[in-house]
Amino acid sequence: MNAPPTAAVIGEGPLAIICGGGSLPFAVADAAMRSGRRVVLFPLRGAAEAQRVVDYPHHWVGVGQFGRFRRIARAEGCRDVVFIGGLVRPTISQLWPDFATLRILPRLIGLFRGGDDHLLSGIAGIFEEHEFHLIGADQVAPEILMPPGVVGRCVPGDRDRKDIACGLALLRATGSFDVGQAVVVADNRVLAVEAAEGTDEMLARLADLRRSGRIHVSAGAGVLIKAPKPGQDRRIDLPSIGPATIEGAARAGLAGIALVAGSAIMAEPERIAQAADRAKIFVIGIGADGLVE
Amino acid sequence: MNAPPTAAVIGEGPLAIICGGGSLPFAVADAAMRSGRRVVLFPLRGAAEAQRVVDYPHHWVGVGQFGRFRRIARAEGCRDVVFIGGLVRPTISQLWPDFATLRILPRLIGLFRGGDDHLLSGIAGIFEEHEFHLIGADQVAPEILMPPGVVGRCVPGDRDRKDIACGLALLRATGSFDVGQAVVVADNRVLAVEAAEGTDEMLARLADLRRSGRIHVSAGAGVLIKAPKPGQDRRIDLPSIGPATIEGAARAGLAGIALVAGSAIMAEPERIAQAADRAKIFVIGIGADGLVE
Repeated sequence: MNAPPTAAVIGEGPLAIICGGGSLPFAVADAAMRSGRRVVLFPLRGAAEAQRVVDYPHHWVGVGQFGRFRRIARAEGCRDVVFIGGLVRPTISQLWPDFATLRILPRLIGLFRGGDDHLLSGIAGIFEEHEFHLIGADQVAPEILMPPGVVGRCVPGDRDRKDIACGLALLRATGSFDVGQAVVVADNRVLAVEAAEGTDEMLARLADLRRSGRIHVSAGAGVLIKAPKPGQDRRIDLPSIGPATIEGAARAGLAGIALVAGSAIMAEPERIAQAADRAKIFVIGIGADGLVE
Repeated sequence: MNAPPTAAVIGEGPLAIICGGGSLPFAVADAAMRSGRRVVLFPLRGAAEAQRVVDYPHHWVGVGQFGRFRRIARAEGCRDVVFIGGLVRPTISQLWPDFATLRILPRLIGLFRGGDDHLLSGIAGIFEEHEFHLIGADQVAPEILMPPGVVGRCVPGDRDRKDIACGLALLRATGSFDVGQAVVVADNRVLAVEAAEGTDEMLARLADLRRSGRIHVSAGAGVLIKAPKPGQDRRIDLPSIGPATIEGAARAGLAGIALVAGSAIMAEPERIAQAADRAKIFVIGIGADGLVE
């Protein structure tokens, strides 16, 4: 795992937050503001939630508008930049690049030929070259990191513990291929491996396969395991869960969810604990090498 | 990979074919009959195609009726047994075991705690202990094996060749986890990894993700790669494609399909070639270590 920059190198001044979809960008913005820092949101068109953006200083940008971002961020005095939230990966032809982006387009085309890590770490490099300082959302808002141990009241059983170990080992084996960050294992059998579809979609598929009888799994068996890929740049792409993940796991009939503590983001922990207790599923932060006993 | 029994040990006498779903069991039965061997089909209830079964000597069996199978197969003089065709993996509670199956139930319960390989190789062992001789479908019907080289008129381009190499490497890395036998790679990015859902379902998901804009992939990019798992018992579970696979790949917008030659089953090669040409996708048999040049 790349070492994150230490807190000492994080500058003062307003924080630019480039916002994808979901509620995470606002949790990060609120946390930064609580710590006394001014924030400027750069919501991405087609991804960020327009209703919530209006509560913050903000400037909409397109995914291909690096020039617009650079100009406004500099004018606002932002040097530190956080990327956070969901984003459907665009194709090169959907970028509608502005002039600054056009200049780096040949390089972007190379970055698009590969997995998400390849693309994201390349984009991070471009920001750094333009003297922005890319920092992890967890550095400005450490409260969004998954803590070790159980969230809510349910705990994993013996079968679940074995499934968690199996899922972690599989994620380690596939990590170097820049695939997904999540698998579902039930009774030592791998039911689903996440790739481009994302976690919510993978859980919906399992729910559908189970309901329609196309797969048969013992009742109450199954754990969603999410872990960062080895070597993943944690400044831009930590695995995350939100209340929707709990609902998806419950609909898929799973026993619970395991995330690597300190290497996963949990939006809205209180709502997650409530949702997990309602659905009677466990949510646990584990060590990178397995369960914390 | 386990060494298959050599042709010399394959006995004479009628061949028992335990039939799952799809057209493959009938292709195997026809090939065995062409070679002058009598066949007795044991279609599995809920899986085999009832309309086609009636054209052959047959006895329906439930998946939990090992005793019924053993009694009839012996009465028919069958010693060699072939398993072939699709089967939704049942749960232990769906087995409705007969008395003979009940006796092995504790052992079956252990087999059900794991992936398909674990289950299938355990079941193969049980057949062998009862003096049945389990043989690969490809041994009685070598014409169903994927040949090296292209089937139909389309050929893979450079981008496709790279995607094939990436997919094969990923399948090798996940093989020891008893996951699926198939992945889809486009532009060096892993779009989908098959687990319990099966190939058709994985392709349908990709088609749906592409159509709805939840993933974006360059037009004409993407290869379905199928390979046997390392150590897989090829007598019971070789990867396979049929005309439906071609249609699924075309609907998912893929450029083609790559299978390991000699280690994959292709039902109805003429129909597959026609379907591939109509859909303008390539179908290629590759070496276990990559493309045959």
